[in-house]
Amino acid sequence: MIYVVFVEPETPGNIGFLARTMKNFGLSQLILINPCELEHETYYQSMHAREIIYNHQEYHTLGEFLERRDIDFAVGSTGTAGGSYNLPRIAITPENLAQSLNVQGNIALIFGREGDGLTNQELELCDVVVSIPTHESYPILNITHAATIIFYELFKTEKNYPVEDLDEASLDEKQGLIEYVDDVLDNLDYPHHKKRNASIVFKRMIGRAFISGREAHTLKGIFRRIRDRIN
Amino acid sequence: MIYVVFVEPETPGNIGFLARTMKNFGLSQLILINPCELEHETYYQSMHAREIIYNHQEYHTLGEFLERRDIDFAVGSTGTAGGSYNLPRIAITPENLAQSLNVQGNIALIFGREGDGLTNQELELCDVVVSIPTHESYPILNITHAATIIFYELFKTEKNYPVEDLDEASLDEKQGLIEYVDDVLDNLDYPHHKKRNASIVFKRMIGRAFISGREAHTLKGIFRRIRDRIN
Repeated sequence: MIYVVFVEPETPGNIGFLARTMKNFGLSQLILINPCELEHETYYQSMHAREIIYNHQEYHTLGEFLERRDIDFAVGSTGTAGGSYNLPRIAITPENLAQSLNVQGNIALIFGREGDGLTNQELELCDVVVSIPTHESYPILNITHAATIIFYELFKTEKNYPVEDLDEASLDEKQGLIEYVDDVLDNLDYPHHKKRNASIVFKRMIGRAFISGREAHTLKGIFRRIRDRIN
Repeated sequence: MIYVVFVEPETPGNIGFLARTMKNFGLSQLILINPCELEHETYYQSMHAREIIYNHQEYHTLGEFLERRDIDFAVGSTGTAGGSYNLPRIAITPENLAQSLNVQGNIALIFGREGDGLTNQELELCDVVVSIPTHESYPILNITHAATIIFYELFKTEKNYPVEDLDEASLDEKQGLIEYVDDVLDNLDYPHHKKRNASIVFKRMIGRAFISGREAHTLKGIFRRIRDRIN
């Protein structure tokens, strides 16, 4: 199941534009996080996709949604990847995303506020960040135009090439792995901030690499052995 | 030179949305055929692409524009290719267009009215018709969303797509990291084939994750500490 998540939309019309382009590419599950009031403009711009607006669900925060809906893989979107973060984060392209995404579990495609995008904290909750390659003179797309490109790439890839059965690791499997890693890091005499940094880098690498269940198992084995050896 | 042609736009805001997404993908020449009045909304929606609105040019008919500006190759767009025309016409995809378009001469990318699209007569003036693959439940995109997908495909193909010059780790940096990992694996009492397997899984994960130089450095740090701790 693919959920489309719009975090704190500010402009009623944009929710409608988003619903319309979702339906254009076969998506139907719209989640709004703490949205503005829905208005006539919302329904008007959705055109023949009104049922998506009617059926939408709301949560207070992105974290609450991810937890309560058992999301296995969260995809954040940003127009400024690697710009202003302490830890620069490599964004993948919509094409990369489409090629590697395995739509077996619960996937969230997350779009940020019109003005400010997703916060660093929200991006931290994502397994991967996707960014659309643009001309340097004006890299920031309107949010629903960015969404349409990502939906289009996913739709196109699904149609043209049958998605490989990649047996992507579940959320549990990935978290199990990360716990082992953190456990090892705790025993390496890192200064606190360096340990945190190392943990984040590892987590992001896991997110971007689309590891399979078997790979998660093997990696866990490595860190279990390391842990046993250290203690 | 690529011209973006909007035939008889009806909604002032859409001209602005079109200008914005043109600039997002490095296009600048906007032609309006017999447009509605430009209003505040036009400039507002163009955001940081106002100069495209200021510099636009107008013609009375598509035919007049094509003739007077020496267009070598006219690309029409339609959401209903082959649907209701007397002369059914096979549309190509944006991807096909991007692959085959040669941006040497004067090219026109032509978008139709919001409601009715391009007329059969106008489509007859085009060398090729492009249509975006969509879900059958709702094949008609908003016009500026359709345009953004076509611009994106052209831009992507032209650039060949290096996303962010985010300092991707060099081959040396990645190999340095893998050597540390192998060093650690050598000390974990793995049976030989299992060690080899673990090493391969790790290497593949690194390959797929597009890690940066800084991330490679951090990961190397983890394995150096582990090695020192084990020995």
